[in-house]
Amino acid sequence: MALIVQKYGGSSVADAESIKRVAKRIVDARRAGHDVVVAVSAMGDTTDELIDLAGQVAPIPAPREMDMLLSSGERISMALLAMAIHSMGFEARSFTGSQAGMITTADHGSARIVDVTPVRLREALDDGAIVIVAGFQGFNRDTRDITTLGRGGSDTTAVALAAALEADVCEIYSDVDGIFTADPRVVPKARKLSVVGAEEMLELAANGAKVLYIRAVEYARRHGVLIHARSTFSSGVGTYVLGPGMSIPDGEEGETMEEPIVAGVATDLGQAKITVIGVPDVPGKAAEIFKIVAKSGANVDMIVQNVSAASTGRTDISFTLPKSDAATAIKALAGDQDDIGFASLVHDDQIGKLSVVGAGMRTHSGVSATLFEALSTSGINIEMISTSEIRISVVLRGDDLADAARVVHTAYGLDGDIEATVYAGTGR
Amino acid sequence: MALIVQKYGGSSVADAESIKRVAKRIVDARRAGHDVVVAVSAMGDTTDELIDLAGQVAPIPAPREMDMLLSSGERISMALLAMAIHSMGFEARSFTGSQAGMITTADHGSARIVDVTPVRLREALDDGAIVIVAGFQGFNRDTRDITTLGRGGSDTTAVALAAALEADVCEIYSDVDGIFTADPRVVPKARKLSVVGAEEMLELAANGAKVLYIRAVEYARRHGVLIHARSTFSSGVGTYVLGPGMSIPDGEEGETMEEPIVAGVATDLGQAKITVIGVPDVPGKAAEIFKIVAKSGANVDMIVQNVSAASTGRTDISFTLPKSDAATAIKALAGDQDDIGFASLVHDDQIGKLSVVGAGMRTHSGVSATLFEALSTSGINIEMISTSEIRISVVLRGDDLADAARVVHTAYGLDGDIEATVYAGTGR
Repeated sequence: MALIVQKYGGSSVADAESIKRVAKRIVDARRAGHDVVVAVSAMGDTTDELIDLAGQVAPIPAPREMDMLLSSGERISMALLAMAIHSMGFEARSFTGSQAGMITTADHGSARIVDVTPVRLREALDDGAIVIVAGFQGFNRDTRDITTLGRGGSDTTAVALAAALEADVCEIYSDVDGIFTADPRVVPKARKLSVVGAEEMLELAANGAKVLYIRAVEYARRHGVLIHARSTFSSGVGTYVLGPGMSIPDGEEGETMEEPIVAGVATDLGQAKITVIGVPDVPGKAAEIFKIVAKSGANVDMIVQNVSAASTGRTDISFTLPKSDAATAIKALAGDQDDIGFASLVHDDQIGKLSVVGAGMRTHSGVSATLFEALSTSGINIEMISTSEIRISVVLRGDDLADAARVVHTAYGLDGDIEATVYAGTGR
Repeated sequence: MALIVQKYGGSSVADAESIKRVAKRIVDARRAGHDVVVAVSAMGDTTDELIDLAGQVAPIPAPREMDMLLSSGERISMALLAMAIHSMGFEARSFTGSQAGMITTADHGSARIVDVTPVRLREALDDGAIVIVAGFQGFNRDTRDITTLGRGGSDTTAVALAAALEADVCEIYSDVDGIFTADPRVVPKARKLSVVGAEEMLELAANGAKVLYIRAVEYARRHGVLIHARSTFSSGVGTYVLGPGMSIPDGEEGETMEEPIVAGVATDLGQAKITVIGVPDVPGKAAEIFKIVAKSGANVDMIVQNVSAASTGRTDISFTLPKSDAATAIKALAGDQDDIGFASLVHDDQIGKLSVVGAGMRTHSGVSATLFEALSTSGINIEMISTSEIRISVVLRGDDLADAARVVHTAYGLDGDIEATVYAGTGR
């Protein structure tokens, strides 16, 4: 008998029918003899609708009240889910983040978990009940206020509960079968992975892959939680995310256990590039620029500085950042143009970022050569390059991104025999 | 400077515009220098919608989960209201029933308040903030579960807070101007009362009048809370409900303070009549009948037993009850027909109940005579009569109820000079 934590996102509980489907899934797990704890998001687009409603009554909604408002969404879905399970003949009890012992910082809208004390959950499990917990929310001990966790909050709730309860596995359900070697909507020949390393998953998620949130994967890696990414619509095995020292449960080995050199390819069209033209080539200028950009709240990704032209003593510095941060960063830099002394700014929002991720890169050479050759053969120009131990990222024209992803996927031998079933889902 | 408690119902906060309107009203009270505490219901039809959603996932929703679900409604409206007040430049803090110290029994769906410990509310008021509290909900100390208070819950929340905080007044807002001498939609010449006694209000509410819930009026009477029933859409004085020893605030006396003999007329089309025909006239039969009816959960109102016919040794017993309870009561009685020995059952759901209420009845004779004469002159037949110290109720044909109410209203000199403005509102 295992202790299983399951997480269901908004699209999995979008309406009464979906809720009943999920309830049946949960009951099946309980029927198999396992203890089951479920973290659930708000129904469908509830959270966005509540944010919209807030905007209608106040231009800048007070953060404490926003969290009070948004936490209602999960309250509704968790209660309905518990009711559905009850009507199937199984005991179920729902708990808010506060009741579940999800203790956080006081940062409304982006609270971080500081402790998990699931006393009431253990009591309920001991009573034989299925436990449902509101995802995305917690409680701050000092202010005694409800908090919400920000993007990926429900995934993080699930993983945090799994860690605190020492669960055997944390199943994260979405409307896709698991983690793929690439987004199937971009690369039709993408294959579902049976396993992926936690570090690889982090890199994939940080660079465009959408099924799991970085934060949850990182928490799982740090606390030794085994994540199993699965589909609400199928009972097949999904993808296991293995942290250090972990292995997949007996009987579920799929493909060869040899670590592939490249796990997958991630694509990201959400970045923009800003080039600061004609920066005086003196020490400290780069520091000035990025201090200003950081203060504007922008999240800088890749940076490239060209060698300065001997003739002018000036250089260009390019960096990438989320499209949504670009306007603020540009405004901040333009405001300090005289101090820094650059000539002009260029804002390019037509870029695409392609990343190749694989733990095998540590020990195998030639991985980047394969990438560059594949792109060159297809006539696709590389504009920026950035690497980490297990990732190579390149910036190219956004229009080239899909083609690039496909040829690179093939070049690394990742193509599947059949085309992956493309779900209309969001991957959440 | 006074401490004012205000209560706003669902139709007062049905959408973003309404919420902003109510926020402005609250801010006006604060601007006048008062401390303001607000109890608020869920927006519009939210509660009914949530009940409906629950019915879609489970035929008999688990009570604990139902309360968890329903309490979300008030959470949403209270947070939005606090946000709106904030954006008008005033500090506001929202609190759930639990955070507000609303301690109740564990009866989900119909919890009763056992204690109110508004520590956090007082702290917020001391900080100069406007306090918003979720109506309709509380918290049970033993189970540590959220509870809801049942019908009239938000009115009760407001009155309970007013009592615990020793507020100067509890303003209950709806979409009508106050308490009228009769329902203006039935009796166009109904007048708004400036004051009404708490006992009279109880009788009116118990017999069909809709603006205030019996429970809240009773709580106010018992704890010495002054209720002021007002309209969200007008700034005029409404109706003060005076308990023993209370008087209306200085400067707000309207009409003569002489206690009218009759305060008002209430009409009720929600009752049905059941007649048990041919009950053996032996001791204990009536007890048997009403024990069975009580066990079926029906709420019996009026009872009439005719003198038995000497020839048959049998009698008929009639009683009234809410229409919604009739089917269950009949089923229960039919099931025990042999034991009780009655001949048959008659179910009449076409009755109407008219009640005349007035504290003056205690000391003045002739009140019932006026009633009977007015009805007789109009050719309206009385089928059952029931009285209390300050109320006379008669059962007649439902079709006759409106006419009866009008002639009786006139007979007691209650008619206003102008026709009351009839709101399309529900009176909530």
